[in-house]
Amino acid sequence: MEYQVFDTTLRDGGQREGISYSVADKLAVAKLLDEFGVGFIEGGWPGAMPKDTEFFQRARTELELKNAVLVAFGATRKAGTPVDQDPQVQALLDAETPVVCVVAKSDIRHVERALRTTGDENLAMVRDTVKHLVANGRRAFVDCEHFFDGFRYDPEYTASVVKTAIEAGAERVIMCDTNGGMLPSMITKAIHEVVERTGVPADLLGIHCQNDTSCAVANTVAAVEAGVKHFQCTANGYGERPGNADLFATVSNLQLKLGLPVLPDGCLEKATRVSSALAEIANIAPDTHQAYVGAAAFAHKAGLHASAIKVDPLLYNHVDPAVVGNDMRILVTEMAGRASIELKSRELGIDLAGHPDTLSTVTRRVKDLEAGGWSFEAADASFELLVRGELAGGSFTRPFDLESYRVQVEHREDGSVVSEATVKVRVRGERVIATAEGNGPVNALDEALRAGLTQYYPQLKNFELSDFKVRILEGSHGTNAITRVLLETGDGERDWTTVGVHENIVEASWVALVDALTYGLAE
Amino acid sequence: MEYQVFDTTLRDGGQREGISYSVADKLAVAKLLDEFGVGFIEGGWPGAMPKDTEFFQRARTELELKNAVLVAFGATRKAGTPVDQDPQVQALLDAETPVVCVVAKSDIRHVERALRTTGDENLAMVRDTVKHLVANGRRAFVDCEHFFDGFRYDPEYTASVVKTAIEAGAERVIMCDTNGGMLPSMITKAIHEVVERTGVPADLLGIHCQNDTSCAVANTVAAVEAGVKHFQCTANGYGERPGNADLFATVSNLQLKLGLPVLPDGCLEKATRVSSALAEIANIAPDTHQAYVGAAAFAHKAGLHASAIKVDPLLYNHVDPAVVGNDMRILVTEMAGRASIELKSRELGIDLAGHPDTLSTVTRRVKDLEAGGWSFEAADASFELLVRGELAGGSFTRPFDLESYRVQVEHREDGSVVSEATVKVRVRGERVIATAEGNGPVNALDEALRAGLTQYYPQLKNFELSDFKVRILEGSHGTNAITRVLLETGDGERDWTTVGVHENIVEASWVALVDALTYGLAE
Repeated sequence: MEYQVFDTTLRDGGQREGISYSVADKLAVAKLLDEFGVGFIEGGWPGAMPKDTEFFQRARTELELKNAVLVAFGATRKAGTPVDQDPQVQALLDAETPVVCVVAKSDIRHVERALRTTGDENLAMVRDTVKHLVANGRRAFVDCEHFFDGFRYDPEYTASVVKTAIEAGAERVIMCDTNGGMLPSMITKAIHEVVERTGVPADLLGIHCQNDTSCAVANTVAAVEAGVKHFQCTANGYGERPGNADLFATVSNLQLKLGLPVLPDGCLEKATRVSSALAEIANIAPDTHQAYVGAAAFAHKAGLHASAIKVDPLLYNHVDPAVVGNDMRILVTEMAGRASIELKSRELGIDLAGHPDTLSTVTRRVKDLEAGGWSFEAADASFELLVRGELAGGSFTRPFDLESYRVQVEHREDGSVVSEATVKVRVRGERVIATAEGNGPVNALDEALRAGLTQYYPQLKNFELSDFKVRILEGSHGTNAITRVLLETGDGERDWTTVGVHENIVEASWVALVDALTYGLAE
Repeated sequence: MEYQVFDTTLRDGGQREGISYSVADKLAVAKLLDEFGVGFIEGGWPGAMPKDTEFFQRARTELELKNAVLVAFGATRKAGTPVDQDPQVQALLDAETPVVCVVAKSDIRHVERALRTTGDENLAMVRDTVKHLVANGRRAFVDCEHFFDGFRYDPEYTASVVKTAIEAGAERVIMCDTNGGMLPSMITKAIHEVVERTGVPADLLGIHCQNDTSCAVANTVAAVEAGVKHFQCTANGYGERPGNADLFATVSNLQLKLGLPVLPDGCLEKATRVSSALAEIANIAPDTHQAYVGAAAFAHKAGLHASAIKVDPLLYNHVDPAVVGNDMRILVTEMAGRASIELKSRELGIDLAGHPDTLSTVTRRVKDLEAGGWSFEAADASFELLVRGELAGGSFTRPFDLESYRVQVEHREDGSVVSEATVKVRVRGERVIATAEGNGPVNALDEALRAGLTQYYPQLKNFELSDFKVRILEGSHGTNAITRVLLETGDGERDWTTVGVHENIVEASWVALVDALTYGLAE
């Protein structure tokens, strides 16, 4: 490929708070990034991090990459140490990757104050390390840390690092906006000056942007527009502080807005799926408002727009959501009018156009419930049950009805914690009482319900609660705090989400649980 | 002010899912925005939304703005209706704001397909509405919807809307990237072409960007660099789909990076406080990774960096966090080495430099606990208790010790839901048993503890649980799902946050609750 899409989700992206990958996670992330078509996967810092050393070892036998090559990240040799006696550099070779990316100081202040060495020794460290890597058959990339701050403070010194690296045989020198303070116009200007001052052509340069001005994606795009052909991103923009340039938005912008073929054919439409799988592995709630790939990226809610969207959807989306594997969604919300509710119902396979009274009732009920803290935006199954209930009038039969439940959590003197639930329900004219233990109150209720109901509904065995989200809606508005629970349930073939709201977290969970089973059993 | 900072948090920002302001919320938001120094606050659409009508009514007596003027938002007159007989336009005048901003179609396709009228009638609608507003003493702004898409498709028509609005007396014509598909270079190019084609100088134009390419802030900055002096933002970037240009990042970039005085003196340092207060009113969890104002915006965690930061903090921050009212934070995390733990402890007033053994023990314990799902990043109080416990060795006395607790939630046949907790604790050599009800299991435990302990610690009366966050850590990594609870507690003078982790949500909450009381009682 003409453009080098360099992903550093596993290295720089791992700096984001809350992320802690196991080696198995890292292998899974690398597979997904390769599927998405990036050309380079920076896997970590072998030697410095034991998990990273193991990742590169296992990758040799366990990873079969179609599009990407693996990159080991490290630093230039230590000041005052011959490169072939530096164990850190040796660990980079031991990782046996075709590409090694070493970080070098390129701001003279950092050389002197953090590294505590001289500008000349730093240049020698760059030169020796690159030559050593190349002599050992590696493609060498050099990340110039604090590049733009350094270039502003002492352009001559920063330029000398670039020249030294290229002369020593580096394939690319990457300008890193480490502190993330740049704007697109500054990036454009700096790159023109760097090319002029060093004589190194822009297509031997790379760009790595942090998001501290909220411009990381724009800065990366600006660098590519200025002639740079190598750019470093992280999936979902994960990274330290406000993060890095988001891989998905950057690549989508370059392909869809500038027409640059940065990914192999057929890869871009995997963006939404890969983004969400990576969020799951990173164990970070997906950002629903993320550009291109977020669940709300193509979601419309204003009543005004929703009615016009029916006329011509492409006039209301900046790209066809399908090109990044996303969907247009119509949100059911307080601001939604009848048009949104009608469109949303149609999306779920229910045509309300011929039932104007039901449409009015549903619209009113949704508005009332949302005023009380309910949210159907993410809970399609609960919304569908509500619509079907209204459509059926009094004739909608639930698979079971609650009489009462009781759930108890006990922390005993020996330190053990036990949860036990008893449910009393009516099902097919019979009264069922069941008791079960669980690892928490909601799990105990779920187990008790299954214990009582499975004889009537054997398919319950396949149901699994796959996610459980709790949101406390603040009580700062003069009302009591209420709890909203979203439950995601699957049966191996499909997933559905239900919602429950109550001031008591157990009751809110119960409401969502009952909807989850009702929805799953209804079809 | 030379620059018009136009905030539309209350109008366009309200399109974000999950936001639903009461009129009191809207008044509180307006006060905060005014404190932050914006020049214009678009309060809503009077007439179309009953809450907005009421907001403008109450604002006349209840709001005393120092920096901003209020703006009523609406649309141009209806096609085929004389402007003085259009009730929607009359409602804009009835709002009695000095400024009215009307949205106009500026893409001929939207005129014909969504509005279903002719290009000429649309121009007449713009002309008549602006003239009517001006004749009634209003400053008139015109939002040109779908401006950039329209200008690309039929530049002549879109230009004619701009010219018509200015000729009719509009003070500013705003170019809206309604579908959010632009990049900074496209914005720059389009603005130069618009100025050339219309003869309208750039400083009579305004910009309104959506974030669908993740470039809303950069696009807004690019427009200002191209000569535009009016820009529309929303606080925290709230808005439909990926949202709008974030007010705080945009203003910070313009002031701190480009040196443009867009806010009155002394306002920018309120950014962090205002951002977080607005998130609370909007009832949206603050984005910790938000540029400039997020809790993690200046947070450092890598052990590598943390040791260098001690040398010279300004080399590691793109701006001094204090200029936007933020702080540098050191995160305690799995990747943290001894340097981070030492720095963090010092931040909390504990000097571990002279206690290398304790520093090692704490570092090891933090790593172990974080591997098990704990997170001290947001839970300074729990971290401090851990450090003080290790420092004191066996001599650290907790204010009370648990023997056991039992909590029960019952959903009775009559539909009522009741929570009751009993705790057995030892305090000052005595055994205390107390029972209390609550609106949920955690509240019941809290009430029971207070019932038993207040006689020993009267200051407990002032403690209040102000926030309760629940995070389910996915069980997809081969382990059982565990629950992490963060509790924020206050006593009127200060707030502190504690953490608890367990597979059982009630036990996790208990652990955080015990830490919360222990921390609060310790001083």
